[in-house]
Amino acid sequence: MTEKPLSRRQREMLRYRQEVLQAALQLFSARGYDRVSMRQIAEKAEFSVGTLYNLFKNKEDIYRAIIVEVADRFETAARGALQGSGNPLERIRAFIAACARVVEENSPAIRLYLSLTRGMAFHFKAGFDEEVQERDRRILQLLASVLEEGGRAGLLRYDLHPDHLALALDGLLGAFLLRCMEEGAGCRPEIYSAVVEEVFLKGALAVDPSKA
Amino acid sequence: MTEKPLSRRQREMLRYRQEVLQAALQLFSARGYDRVSMRQIAEKAEFSVGTLYNLFKNKEDIYRAIIVEVADRFETAARGALQGSGNPLERIRAFIAACARVVEENSPAIRLYLSLTRGMAFHFKAGFDEEVQERDRRILQLLASVLEEGGRAGLLRYDLHPDHLALALDGLLGAFLLRCMEEGAGCRPEIYSAVVEEVFLKGALAVDPSKA
Repeated sequence: MTEKPLSRRQREMLRYRQEVLQAALQLFSARGYDRVSMRQIAEKAEFSVGTLYNLFKNKEDIYRAIIVEVADRFETAARGALQGSGNPLERIRAFIAACARVVEENSPAIRLYLSLTRGMAFHFKAGFDEEVQERDRRILQLLASVLEEGGRAGLLRYDLHPDHLALALDGLLGAFLLRCMEEGAGCRPEIYSAVVEEVFLKGALAVDPSKA
Repeated sequence: MTEKPLSRRQREMLRYRQEVLQAALQLFSARGYDRVSMRQIAEKAEFSVGTLYNLFKNKEDIYRAIIVEVADRFETAARGALQGSGNPLERIRAFIAACARVVEENSPAIRLYLSLTRGMAFHFKAGFDEEVQERDRRILQLLASVLEEGGRAGLLRYDLHPDHLALALDGLLGAFLLRCMEEGAGCRPEIYSAVVEEVFLKGALAVDPSKA
């Protein structure tokens, strides 16, 4: 990332910024983003308010820096795995493991991001988002029961938990249908649903799956 | 849904509500939720403002009704497929197709929901969400190139577009890692990543995939 060596002053600023980000994330996680002030962040990080404003424009700027840092970690981990050694299959496996690791190591920041970008964000009354999510849960449960039935009938795998299979199918559908929405008028959901079905049922391996 | 027959008055109210929802959705889609007033919705639906307020408390209430209606359609379609005829595998396939159909038929309402619940919602400066999404796009591209390499090497399927396979893996990971976040401290990403790998590579079918 660095193109030329940083001066002592620059290194110091970077370290201070990191200290602020850590203190702010702890406060956001404990109290909620909306209930934390710049003054409280300054106190926690042991800086004067003036110094804090030299480092970050405002609270939103701190939040932004926290999230972009995690996004960078994802990208670095993904690149490391995908451009690493091994055949493509090994690199895909490394990629999956790397993503899980980044999530594990950055869960407070990711939770913060989720809490601010979903549901709560739009200041709707509590309970509305809940209404939609309840339907999702009911669909997932029903889906899991059908998948379990398929397992018992010998049609589907029975070594994976039906709840996990249901979540997998839900995630696949969600990703493709969201992409469809982003594409706008040109989107043909039937093409995407064919891909979802193929991947969900048969997977991405070229060879007999029992050998992988 | 109906437990006893509705009176003429109740049926009329329901029809009026539907007319309002349609008019409001058209306005929200054309101008953006924030730039539409109750007065404009009343005009478009050809009701007085007073009548509109008899039907809905406020604009948020209208938005809520639009979204809950779509959530209901999802649930009805999902139930129809999952509790329908055929073996579990056929019902899973019907479920996938049903979800795609609901998305296709309700794309304006779903777009509205997405526009209000993601990114834009928190009134962050434009460009910030873009920064995170740009990293996502770069990771997806890199992932697709590795998947293509795997296809050329005979390790992975080459009949599906690498972009689609990348999106599938991304969707699987997203669903499981989000679940992990929801579970809180007890979550073990490594278990989830094992499931993601299994489903992504081998799929959910019990039998030799070439026979399905």
